[in-house]
Amino acid sequence: MLEFCLVGGGFIGPLHAANIAAHPGARLAWVVDLDVAVAGALATKHGARATANLDAALADPAVGAVMICTPPRTHAAIIERAARAGKAVFCEKPVDLDMSRVDACAKVLESTGAPFFVAFNRRFDPSHRALFEAIRGGEIGRPEMLVLSSRDPEISPPDYVAAMPYGIFYDTMIHDFDMVRWLLADEPVEVIARTACMLDAKDNPHRDPDTAMVMLRMAGGALVHVNSSFRAVYGYDQRIEAFGEKGMLISRNRQPTTLERYGADGIRQDGLLRFFIERYAESYARELDDFVRAIEEKRAPAIGLEDGRRALAIAEAAVASAKSGAAVALLR
Amino acid sequence: MLEFCLVGGGFIGPLHAANIAAHPGARLAWVVDLDVAVAGALATKHGARATANLDAALADPAVGAVMICTPPRTHAAIIERAARAGKAVFCEKPVDLDMSRVDACAKVLESTGAPFFVAFNRRFDPSHRALFEAIRGGEIGRPEMLVLSSRDPEISPPDYVAAMPYGIFYDTMIHDFDMVRWLLADEPVEVIARTACMLDAKDNPHRDPDTAMVMLRMAGGALVHVNSSFRAVYGYDQRIEAFGEKGMLISRNRQPTTLERYGADGIRQDGLLRFFIERYAESYARELDDFVRAIEEKRAPAIGLEDGRRALAIAEAAVASAKSGAAVALLR
Amino acid sequence: MLEFCLVGGGFIGPLHAANIAAHPGARLAWVVDLDVAVAGALATKHGARATANLDAALADPAVGAVMICTPPRTHAAIIERAARAGKAVFCEKPVDLDMSRVDACAKVLESTGAPFFVAFNRRFDPSHRALFEAIRGGEIGRPEMLVLSSRDPEISPPDYVAAMPYGIFYDTMIHDFDMVRWLLADEPVEVIARTACMLDAKDNPHRDPDTAMVMLRMAGGALVHVNSSFRAVYGYDQRIEAFGEKGMLISRNRQPTTLERYGADGIRQDGLLRFFIERYAESYARELDDFVRAIEEKRAPAIGLEDGRRALAIAEAAVASAKSGAAVALLR
Amino acid sequence: MLEFCLVGGGFIGPLHAANIAAHPGARLAWVVDLDVAVAGALATKHGARATANLDAALADPAVGAVMICTPPRTHAAIIERAARAGKAVFCEKPVDLDMSRVDACAKVLESTGAPFFVAFNRRFDPSHRALFEAIRGGEIGRPEMLVLSSRDPEISPPDYVAAMPYGIFYDTMIHDFDMVRWLLADEPVEVIARTACMLDAKDNPHRDPDTAMVMLRMAGGALVHVNSSFRAVYGYDQRIEAFGEKGMLISRNRQPTTLERYGADGIRQDGLLRFFIERYAESYARELDDFVRAIEEKRAPAIGLEDGRRALAIAEAAVASAKSGAAVALLR
Repeated sequence: MLEFCLVGGGFIGPLHAANIAAHPGARLAWVVDLDVAVAGALATKHGARATANLDAALADPAVGAVMICTPPRTHAAIIERAARAGKAVFCEKPVDLDMSRVDACAKVLESTGAPFFVAFNRRFDPSHRALFEAIRGGEIGRPEMLVLSSRDPEISPPDYVAAMPYGIFYDTMIHDFDMVRWLLADEPVEVIARTACMLDAKDNPHRDPDTAMVMLRMAGGALVHVNSSFRAVYGYDQRIEAFGEKGMLISRNRQPTTLERYGADGIRQDGLLRFFIERYAESYARELDDFVRAIEEKRAPAIGLEDGRRALAIAEAAVASAKSGAAVALLR
Repeated sequence: MLEFCLVGGGFIGPLHAANIAAHPGARLAWVVDLDVAVAGALATKHGARATANLDAALADPAVGAVMICTPPRTHAAIIERAARAGKAVFCEKPVDLDMSRVDACAKVLESTGAPFFVAFNRRFDPSHRALFEAIRGGEIGRPEMLVLSSRDPEISPPDYVAAMPYGIFYDTMIHDFDMVRWLLADEPVEVIARTACMLDAKDNPHRDPDTAMVMLRMAGGALVHVNSSFRAVYGYDQRIEAFGEKGMLISRNRQPTTLERYGADGIRQDGLLRFFIERYAESYARELDDFVRAIEEKRAPAIGLEDGRRALAIAEAAVASAKSGAAVALLR
Repeated sequence: MLEFCLVGGGFIGPLHAANIAAHPGARLAWVVDLDVAVAGALATKHGARATANLDAALADPAVGAVMICTPPRTHAAIIERAARAGKAVFCEKPVDLDMSRVDACAKVLESTGAPFFVAFNRRFDPSHRALFEAIRGGEIGRPEMLVLSSRDPEISPPDYVAAMPYGIFYDTMIHDFDMVRWLLADEPVEVIARTACMLDAKDNPHRDPDTAMVMLRMAGGALVHVNSSFRAVYGYDQRIEAFGEKGMLISRNRQPTTLERYGADGIRQDGLLRFFIERYAESYARELDDFVRAIEEKRAPAIGLEDGRRALAIAEAAVASAKSGAAVALLR
Repeated sequence: MLEFCLVGGGFIGPLHAANIAAHPGARLAWVVDLDVAVAGALATKHGARATANLDAALADPAVGAVMICTPPRTHAAIIERAARAGKAVFCEKPVDLDMSRVDACAKVLESTGAPFFVAFNRRFDPSHRALFEAIRGGEIGRPEMLVLSSRDPEISPPDYVAAMPYGIFYDTMIHDFDMVRWLLADEPVEVIARTACMLDAKDNPHRDPDTAMVMLRMAGGALVHVNSSFRAVYGYDQRIEAFGEKGMLISRNRQPTTLERYGADGIRQDGLLRFFIERYAESYARELDDFVRAIEEKRAPAIGLEDGRRALAIAEAAVASAKSGAAVALLR
C-alpha cells in the first residue's frame, strides 16, 4: 500500500485525492495546504490527516509518495524537498517554466535517486494510447506526418493569463509537444510557430496569443502540425492523427451521449465533452495506477523529468519563433 | 448494341431513357406512350422514334428489348405482347397485383422463352449488394436475424392510395420482401403483420395503413423484422441489418453531403437523401447494365418472374395477417 | 447520510458496494452474505461490518436502506423482511419470476409503506435517458414505432440456463420491456414472440431459446419491435430507436476507444464494449444516486414494484406467445 | 445550346465530353487531337466531328466555347488562339506554370474580352461547397483557422514527376491554395513550407518531394495548414476543416459504400474512394453546368485567370520556402 502526501488541496487536488482513495494499492495519508481549511475538508473526506506544514508530513515515515497539485511556480521547490526526504514524487505538469530551475531540480533528483513522475496525463487516455500502441505495433509503418488539434472552449481568467504569457504554448500545447515526442519516439529539430489574437479585448484583455499553429520537423524526418485555440465553442477538441507509409490512425473526440436526433432539418448529435477533467477522467486514474505500480515494481515512472524538460524546450522554441518569425532549431 | 423500345414516357421513364442513352451497349430506338407529346419529347432528346402504337414499335426487328415503365395494372398485358413479339422484357415492379394475372404471364413467358427481368432495383444498390456479398462470402456465418427499415418521407397522393389499398405492403415493403429472399437465399414460412394509421385524415383521407411492422420466419429458421412508415420527415430511410453467428452487417443511409457542423448547441449533419430516384440512382444504372449484359451473354436476367410472384405472395400474406390478426403460413 | 445494508456480496454486490462508498450521501454499514468470508472481504474494503445473519443487520437502527444483490429467487423474501424492519429497499431486478409471489410482496410493501426501488438500471444510462427526455420534450412528436436491439456476446452457463428457462425473455428482454413502457409512457395490449435455437448444442445444451424477436402493440397504437441474441460476437449490442411524427432518435452503442485505423483494406474501429457492467457503469452509479436522493427527499423511488410486475407480465406473455404461436392479449 | 470544341481527347477529355453530352444546354461539336484516331473515337461516340487541326474547328461559327484538356504546357497558347477566335474558354488547371506566360495570357483575354474559366473543380464538390456556403452564411462567424488534408494514394509516374519538379505544390496543393482563397475570401501574406521524401527510390526515383506541410498567414489574420502526401494507401484523402469564432465545419471523405461490418475483431468499413475522377465526379458535372449558365447569362465564369495566377503564386512561394527554409512574404 503506497501512502500519499498530497500537496495542494484546490483545483485538481480533490480529483487526485479521490483517485488515490479508489485505488486498491494506494492510500491518502496527508493533505497539505497553506489554507488549513482546504486541507482539512479534503483530508476528512478521505480519512487522511491535514496540515499547512509540508515538513511535518514529509517527516512521516509511512509516506512513500508526494503528489504535487500546487500552482506551477511552486513545483520545483516541493519536488526538491520531497526528493530530499526520500519520497517518490508525482508532480502535475509543468516542472517549472524556467529551464534553469528545471535543470537544478534534475540535479537534486539525480543525487537523491527519488523516483519522479511528471503528469502528462494524455499519454494515459485510452484512445491516444491505442493510437500509440498501433504505431509501436507497426500498423502504419514509418510515421510520416502527425496532425494534432488541441482546443479549449475558453481562455483562462485574465490574472492567470497575465501570470503566464504565451500560455498557449507553455500551458496548453506543452501537452501536445509531449505527445509528439512520445508518439513518434523522436525529437524535433526545428520549430516554426505563428499566433493570433482572435478573441475580443473583453475576453482577452492582455492580448496574449489565443490562437496558434506550430510546425515541427523531427530528427527522423516526420513533419508535425499542431493547432490550438482558446474558443472552441463546441467543446474541448482533442484529436490526434498519425499518417504513415501503411495507413492513418485517428484518435477522435468524445461526446457525453451517443444520441442521434433525426429531424426535418438534419441530424444532430451532442457536442464534445467540455471540461478537461471529464474528457480525461480515465487518464487521471490510469496515470496514478501506472505510478503506483512503478513504485511497487521499483521501475522508473513512465514520464520523467527529462520529458518535462524537453516539452518545455519545445514550448520555449515556439515562443521564440512566434516572436521573431524565424524557424528555431533545436539541438537534440 | 441492344435496341430498346421504352413503353411509358412519364415518371420513371425519362430516368431509364437517360440510362439507356448513357450505356455503351444500349440504344433507345422507340418511345411508346398513349400521350404522343410525352413520347415525342423523350424520343427527340435521345434520337429515338415516338409512337402511341405499341405494335408499330414491336414490329421493328431492330428492337431487341422492351422496357416497361407504365402504371402497374398495364404491366402484364405489355409483358405478354412483348414476349410474343420475341423481345426481351425489362419490367418495372410489380408484374401485377393479381396473382392469377401473374401466373398467366408466367405461362406466356415460359412458352415464348422471352428473357424477362423485373426491376427490384435495390438489389443493385452498391451498399446493399456489398452486404449481400459479405453474407455470401461467409463473413457473418449463418444469418440468424435480419432487420430492415424502409420508410418514405411522405405518403402517396390520395388517388394513388385509393387505387392500391395496403400499398405499404404491395408497393413499398414488396421491395423489402424481395431483399429478404435475395439476401437470405431462403423463403418465409410464416408472416405476421401489424399496421397503424398515424397520419392525419388530411394527409391520409382513405385511412389506409401508413405505418407497419412485419415479422417473418424463414424456412431455414432465421427471424426477420421489417418496418415501414410514410412520414419519415428526415428523409428516405433505407437500412438493412444482417446478424449472424460471426457478426453483423449494416447497410446505412446516404446523405447529400459529408459536412459536419460543430456549434455551441452540438454537431449537425445533413438529413438523408429524400427521393428514391436520387437514393437509388446507381441502382437504376446498374440494373440496366446487368440486364444488357444478360441478353448479350444469353443468360437469364438476374431477377425473374418467379421472384416477382414470390414477393407478391409475401405481400398478400402480410395483408391477410394485418386484417385477421393471425399468423399466416406460406407454403414454400 | 444514508447507511446501507448490502445483502449478497458476490457478482454485482461489489460494484454496488463501491458505488455506495463513492457516493457523498451514502455509507456502507453492513455486508450480509451466507458465505461469511465473502461478506468479510467486501466489508473490510469499505469499512463496514460483516455478517451471515440478516436479522442482525436489520436490527441496526442506523441502517436506513437494504440493497439486495442475491439470486432472484431470494429477492421477495428479503424485500419483505427489510420492509417489515422499516427499511427502504433497493432490489436488483427481477422482484421474482412468479407473479403471485410478486403480488404478495406488493401487499407487504403497501402495508409497511417501505420505499421500494427495482433496479432497471438502463433507465439511467445517459444516452437512453437523453432519448427519453427528447421524447418527453416532444422532439419527435407522437412516438409511432420503437425498435430495440438487445444482444449479449454469449449465453449464460448451462446451469444458469437450466434454472431459468426462457431466460431470453425473463432475464434479458425484461429490461427492454421496461424500457418500452418507460419510453412510451404506455402499456402493451398485444405481444407476439418468436424464438430460435441458433447456438450449437455445446454452447446451448438445454436448447433454450437463444434468439428472439418480439412485436408489441401499445394501447396508444405505437408498434414496437425487440430483438435479442446470445451470441453477438462483436460485443454487447444495445441500441434503441424511436420513430415519431417529427423525426427519429437513436441511442447508439459505445466503444472502448475512439480510434479509427485507415489501412489499405479499409477503415477499422474497436468493437463494442463487451460486458454489461462496463457498458452500464454510469447507469449503476446514477440509479444509486437517484435512490439516495429519493429517500432524502421523501419521494417515491423512480421505479417501483408495479414496474417490476408489469415487465414480468410482458415477459410471461412473450413466453406464452412463443410457445403457442398465437398473439397474446394483455389487459391494461 | 452552347456548342463545344474539345481540345485533347485523352485522360480527362472523355469525362468532359460525356458531361457535355449529358448537359441539356450543351453539345459537343468538335474533338481536336493531334492523334486523329483519338479525336475520331471520342467524336463518334458523341456525334461530333473530329480533326487534328485546331484552326479548322475554331473557324466553325457554331462553336461557342473551347474546352482545353491538353497537357499543361500547351494551355496558354490554346487559350490565346481560342480567345482571338472569339470563343469562350474552359481550361483545365493550371493556366501555365510560368508566371510570365500566365500574364501574357491575361493580356490576350483582356483585349479580346473572351469569357474564361479555369477548372478548379473542387469548388463545385457538394460537401466543400456546403462548407463554403456555411462560412458565407456566418455559421462559424469569423474564420480563424483552416486545416486541409490533400493526399493521393500514389505518386505520378517518374516521367511526369521529372517534367514538373515540386509537383506536390504545382499540381496537387495548387487546388488547396485555390480552396483557401475561395473559402476565406482572403489572400495569404506569408507562406512557410517544408517537404520530405518518404517514398522509396523505386517509387520516387527523382527524389522530388512526396510529403509536404504548408502554413499560410492570411491578410485578415487567419492561420492555415495544408498537408499532402503521395502515398495515402487507404485512398484519396480530401478533407477540409474550418474553425471560427462560432464553431467548426468539416467536409469529410467519401466512401464507396455505407456498409459496416461488425466482427469479433472490431468494426470495419470501406476505405476511401481512390480516384479523383470518382471522388469529384459531381464536381466535374457541376463546374460545366456553371460555365454553360455563365455564358448563357452573359456573366463572368466563376473562376477566372486571376484565380489561376494567384494559386500559382502561392505554389511558387511554397517552393521557394521549401528550398530556402525561410518564410516567404506574398504581396496582396
